[in-house]
Amino acid sequence: MRLGAFLYPTGYHVAAWRHPEVPADAGVDIGHYAELARTAERGKLDFLFLPDSSAMRGGDTAELSRTAIRYVAQFEPLTLLGALAGVTERIGLTATISATYNEPYHSARMLASLDHISRGRAGWNLVTSQNPYEAYNFGLPEHPEHGVRYARAQEFAQVVKGLWDTWSDDAWVRDKAAGRFFDPAGVRPLDHHGEHFSVRGPLNMPRCPQGHPVTLQAGSSDTGRDLAAATADVVFTAQHSREQALAFTEDVRARAEKLGRDPEGVKVLAGVFPFVGRTRAEAEEKVERLQDLIDPQVGLGLLSSELGHADLDGSDLDGPLPDIPVSNSGRSRRDLLVRMAREEGLTVRQLYKRVAGSRGHWQVVGTPESVADELADWFHSGAVDGFIVMPPYLPGGLEDFVDLVVPELRRRGLFRTEYTGTTLRDHLGLARPGR
Amino acid sequence: MRLGAFLYPTGYHVAAWRHPEVPADAGVDIGHYAELARTAERGKLDFLFLPDSSAMRGGDTAELSRTAIRYVAQFEPLTLLGALAGVTERIGLTATISATYNEPYHSARMLASLDHISRGRAGWNLVTSQNPYEAYNFGLPEHPEHGVRYARAQEFAQVVKGLWDTWSDDAWVRDKAAGRFFDPAGVRPLDHHGEHFSVRGPLNMPRCPQGHPVTLQAGSSDTGRDLAAATADVVFTAQHSREQALAFTEDVRARAEKLGRDPEGVKVLAGVFPFVGRTRAEAEEKVERLQDLIDPQVGLGLLSSELGHADLDGSDLDGPLPDIPVSNSGRSRRDLLVRMAREEGLTVRQLYKRVAGSRGHWQVVGTPESVADELADWFHSGAVDGFIVMPPYLPGGLEDFVDLVVPELRRRGLFRTEYTGTTLRDHLGLARPGR
Ligand SMILES: Cc1cc2nc3c(=O)[nH]c(=O)nc-3n(C[C@H](O)[C@H](O)[C@H](O)COP(=O)(O)O)c2cc1C
Ligand SMILES: Cc1cc2nc3c(=O)[nH]c(=O)nc-3n(C[C@H](O)[C@H](O)[C@H](O)COP(=O)(O)O)c2cc1C
Repeated sequence: MRLGAFLYPTGYHVAAWRHPEVPADAGVDIGHYAELARTAERGKLDFLFLPDSSAMRGGDTAELSRTAIRYVAQFEPLTLLGALAGVTERIGLTATISATYNEPYHSARMLASLDHISRGRAGWNLVTSQNPYEAYNFGLPEHPEHGVRYARAQEFAQVVKGLWDTWSDDAWVRDKAAGRFFDPAGVRPLDHHGEHFSVRGPLNMPRCPQGHPVTLQAGSSDTGRDLAAATADVVFTAQHSREQALAFTEDVRARAEKLGRDPEGVKVLAGVFPFVGRTRAEAEEKVERLQDLIDPQVGLGLLSSELGHADLDGSDLDGPLPDIPVSNSGRSRRDLLVRMAREEGLTVRQLYKRVAGSRGHWQVVGTPESVADELADWFHSGAVDGFIVMPPYLPGGLEDFVDLVVPELRRRGLFRTEYTGTTLRDHLGLARPGR
Repeated sequence: MRLGAFLYPTGYHVAAWRHPEVPADAGVDIGHYAELARTAERGKLDFLFLPDSSAMRGGDTAELSRTAIRYVAQFEPLTLLGALAGVTERIGLTATISATYNEPYHSARMLASLDHISRGRAGWNLVTSQNPYEAYNFGLPEHPEHGVRYARAQEFAQVVKGLWDTWSDDAWVRDKAAGRFFDPAGVRPLDHHGEHFSVRGPLNMPRCPQGHPVTLQAGSSDTGRDLAAATADVVFTAQHSREQALAFTEDVRARAEKLGRDPEGVKVLAGVFPFVGRTRAEAEEKVERLQDLIDPQVGLGLLSSELGHADLDGSDLDGPLPDIPVSNSGRSRRDLLVRMAREEGLTVRQLYKRVAGSRGHWQVVGTPESVADELADWFHSGAVDGFIVMPPYLPGGLEDFVDLVVPELRRRGLFRTEYTGTTLRDHLGLARPGR
């Protein structure tokens, strides 16, 4: 089983930053991240995963000021991973990079640099940016359209990987006596001329330890799956049921095969949002503790956007959901939530609590044994190759997973007790592309 | 006296990589850099300085393959400084960033991130790119013209600093009880709309420990000095004589004052290329050892590039320097070299030997006492505030400086024995910009 650790600074739950055991300045506390990295490495996890955005996500400052999950305050991931490379030895280090707002030459170079610095532990999560507010920080009047972003991302990945392939593995002879630093036969330019990029290359850096740092991808639309099938070593997906996960995995693998790739070279990992306690009651207490910290204004804001930006101002939090008009931003999610509220007789507060917690990812609550049961079930069914663990709050949620669930997975022979390789490709069972 | 350590991977001398004691793979050996960083910190130096370019510098692969100083093989500096932040405690960490081929939002964010990671030790060397080959890696048909690059750099610095100022120091209240993560009154957008950039902001990161990471600048043309005067906390300059250095310093300070800045807030550091031995003979032996390793093909290529990529093919190596037209690369270097060749009656071969060694920087050769004498002389005359030490080869050249020259400077009361502050601004005696 493959396991990654998703590190949103204070944790994935919307109210994590208010938890008494969570450092509220986690996003800019290097000591906090060093501790998380060491904890994940102690658990022999495959990699750390850093989500990212190059702008605060939202336009209403008053609303943003009440939440820590809108990319308001966190390290830039590549500089952070440079630092974490120095405090870890084996764990993989992966950073989210947006193809929409970056230059492929810089990204290829920084990732190759990180791969050298970490001696083969670098990876990247290639995204097209879910946050439209990034556009304004890069001189664009608006976020490019979905299809344009994905077309650019396809070309971006092609250029980045092409640059990594500009040097052969044996080009660097460094022959002091002959005065030959590298062998000219081992280098070729890229000479890419595409719709979005023109990049001559070569990369001004020797081929990196992994050949190619590991590529993760998280698109789930049709176009997104095509990008994953074409470019990804690892696909990160949000799924709610084993059956849906299995269908997703089969679909992505089939697309990869159609492109001539070995489907086994595409690992699928599902996000899991776990609450673990020594007893089930303890685990549920952990859920409630966080749920109770959700700021009504933040909860209402989240619920409103899920309901198609419905106006919920002034509604009674402990009364029933008022009538929600149909908006033009899609009605399936609105209908589902309205029906759920009506059928279960949920109050507004109860409904936003449902929405605010896992935000689309699979929530599991229980004992180490029951959580391991659920993970094992998905894994054994072939639905996924593993999980990206999204601790609700940090560092506690990660410690719970590493200290309680991982030993249980080991007892079942599902997870490593020691790293057997040195690179992230080794950990994931991915071949190293040579040249 | 302020001292920085200039870390070209194998050392600044063109033949350093061929030196028997130099690791030829230094550019991608994190252990090598960690050792250099610790050595410089043991010497209590103010900062590490990383030169940079986003392309190999040259178009002739056969020629490039015989040298290690054309940015062919080295870490990307921001990821590297992230890693070095973790193995050091006090020393400043500065990276070269080109305004010509970067987005100010990304640069501001990465530098602020590095400042948080290192707890106030970050700085950047703002350049306009001396290497025209970068253009082809970023979709441009050619390197933009000198004046355009400088205009963009002025605006780039304005945007970067503006982004650093989008948050007040006290905005981050992180009040868990009240659910207020930050105070909306402490943030403002940038809303920059200029000729080269449109950037809304704010930066999605709290104000960094130094307020503004330290800005270094190394332009020496008229336009370059204007940029330095407007933006730099530290000016890095190549000077050959105390008098020229003094004139340069007075000129840059006068320009800064004209812009309403405190001239004392602009520190001027000259590059120094030192060979130090226990005896003068030992120091000269170190020079000869490296000069003997210069490949003639490399020497000529280097001279051409220092002259703005002048065509020197077919010129008589033992004849005088032919006429060199002014090019679009930096012109100050070209002017200096042409004048030097004319005044001293140097042949092409003699000139490339001069150039290949210190490449325009001030070379000092001698005992710890004589080197300290020379540095003290420049310093006491007010010509400079200190030096950027460019060790000819690494790690040996840096160890020589730290173990032989620094103690001599201390004996004279010219250099610190311990760090008295924790940030790079503290080390340099620069005030922290508040907001
Ligand atoms: C699990 C997961 C994690 C993601 N992480 C990020 C992220 O850190 N930053 C970002 O800008 N987008 C992120 N995305 C957004 C996707 O890359 C993609 O842009 C978005 O899902 C829209 O594409 P789609 O329509 O194909 O789903 C993530 C998506 C998923 C499903
Ligand atoms: C001491 C010194 C160090 C420099 N370091 C770099 C560097 O690392 N990368 C780069 O692209 N340019 C570097 N430059 C180039 C300058 O930033 C500038 O682009 C160049 O000198 C041309 O400008 P000028 O005509 O004002 O001198 C350096 C220049 C000097 C004098």
